[in-house]
Amino acid sequence: MNTVAIFGVGLIGGSFALALRKAGFSGRIVGVSEPEIVARAIELKVIDEGASPQNAAESADLIYLSEPILRIAEMLPELNEWARPGALITDAGSTKSTIVERARASITRCQFVGGHPLAGSERRGVEAAQADLFAERPYVLTPLSENQMKTAAAAWLFEWIQRIGAYPIVLSAERHDQVVAYTSHLPQLASTALAAMLDHRTEPVFGVFGPALIDSTRLALSSYHMWGDILATNRVAIQDALRAYIAKLEEFSRSLDASHMSEEFAQAARFASQIRGPSENP
Amino acid sequence: MNTVAIFGVGLIGGSFALALRKAGFSGRIVGVSEPEIVARAIELKVIDEGASPQNAAESADLIYLSEPILRIAEMLPELNEWARPGALITDAGSTKSTIVERARASITRCQFVGGHPLAGSERRGVEAAQADLFAERPYVLTPLSENQMKTAAAAWLFEWIQRIGAYPIVLSAERHDQVVAYTSHLPQLASTALAAMLDHRTEPVFGVFGPALIDSTRLALSSYHMWGDILATNRVAIQDALRAYIAKLEEFSRSLDASHMSEEFAQAARFASQIRGPSENP
Repeated sequence: MNTVAIFGVGLIGGSFALALRKAGFSGRIVGVSEPEIVARAIELKVIDEGASPQNAAESADLIYLSEPILRIAEMLPELNEWARPGALITDAGSTKSTIVERARASITRCQFVGGHPLAGSERRGVEAAQADLFAERPYVLTPLSENQMKTAAAAWLFEWIQRIGAYPIVLSAERHDQVVAYTSHLPQLASTALAAMLDHRTEPVFGVFGPALIDSTRLALSSYHMWGDILATNRVAIQDALRAYIAKLEEFSRSLDASHMSEEFAQAARFASQIRGPSENP
Repeated sequence: MNTVAIFGVGLIGGSFALALRKAGFSGRIVGVSEPEIVARAIELKVIDEGASPQNAAESADLIYLSEPILRIAEMLPELNEWARPGALITDAGSTKSTIVERARASITRCQFVGGHPLAGSERRGVEAAQADLFAERPYVLTPLSENQMKTAAAAWLFEWIQRIGAYPIVLSAERHDQVVAYTSHLPQLASTALAAMLDHRTEPVFGVFGPALIDSTRLALSSYHMWGDILATNRVAIQDALRAYIAKLEEFSRSLDASHMSEEFAQAARFASQIRGPSENP
């Protein structure tokens, strides 16, 4: 692999470029974005140079798509025309079924493996890019078939995901989308729902809250920018997760007594502790 | 005011003592706790000395009760026997109606003003006490009647709450409990419900989550220790808050389309931004 083309040099695309470089990638990194973003990304040494979508796709061994989900799906037929036969296209979209379905129908001249780095930041754009964004984080890969991970290009991608410090996990697109509906989309909607509901209630004594409310509404600060595509492409799984959450809240509402709630608190604390590293457990 | 007696020298009681001292209080601070906690609190210069409950109550101008809610309510009749006629009893319980009702029935020989500092930490105990725990935080006072805030002792308390950097807010106990059901108890139960629900689902691909799940389950780490009394003494208001939250989640589940959700995200982000200081807005 000599040339990597990053389509969409923002937080994720820019961080992937910086991470590759830090991990020792010595090839060329080309960026495809608005001219002023390309200029800034060159200045920040995130990419080596800018290129048009066609030129970038024609010269790249790895095409890395870090654009909104529906835009990624839309680009695939054209990229298939431009890409070199040995090239690998991957993406960083937060849902995978829609993109993988489109790839299955349109990628015929090269290879496609979907991807989703479970990393992020409240900040956006190339200015927020950082080489260690993916370190110690899971990085899901969704190949079109299991055999596909055995090709040289897919093995290269898998290996570099490990080199940048992430944990590659191979899953079907459908399974990925079901899991993140619970672990990512539901937490976002739970926070958005809490903040939106409280905003409706114009409490006169509104200063009366503690650190818990600040914590619980941090995700509610997220812009709708990236969530529109997520909600549109994972509706059924998200509704399933919302139903499970509502059922648990209804159970709490019916039974707030000590024997029930002490067990629920213990179970919740055990779960919250399990998903944390030692440094994140108080 | 020459002598302050802190009943329960833990995070809140210890921090109140440290905050008074830092703000220039030059009187005596007596602590009532288990012997080893008293010893540690003296060592950490949180209190000047320990005393039995009766000796502390008999000598104090201000009696500060930072014990569990039901324990506070239970102590009031006895404290009324012991306390000096000019003394003021206040407390730091997280719900106020039960305590204020009990005070109304049992405090006849001195004065009582309920309190709730909206401050906290994931850590507990006197070791975690810090002089600036209440700084920039609301501190609710719930007098038995509005006139009561005009007495010298109540004015003294109000003034020292300001001196330690907190914002005193005077509310009825009932109004306080309704508001914190939404701003504090609901966020806690929303996080506990999320973590408990996810723990029930034994997902085989469990590593697949990002920073959002860590954020959303931070409150779920809370121990049930202090929540049992809160749930027992604010049941109706908490059920009301749970119902409002469930209704909003059901609305999301029915209508995940862009026109609806973009407005909900905008409203939620506006609210989340409003409750933050400039330093907490990304």
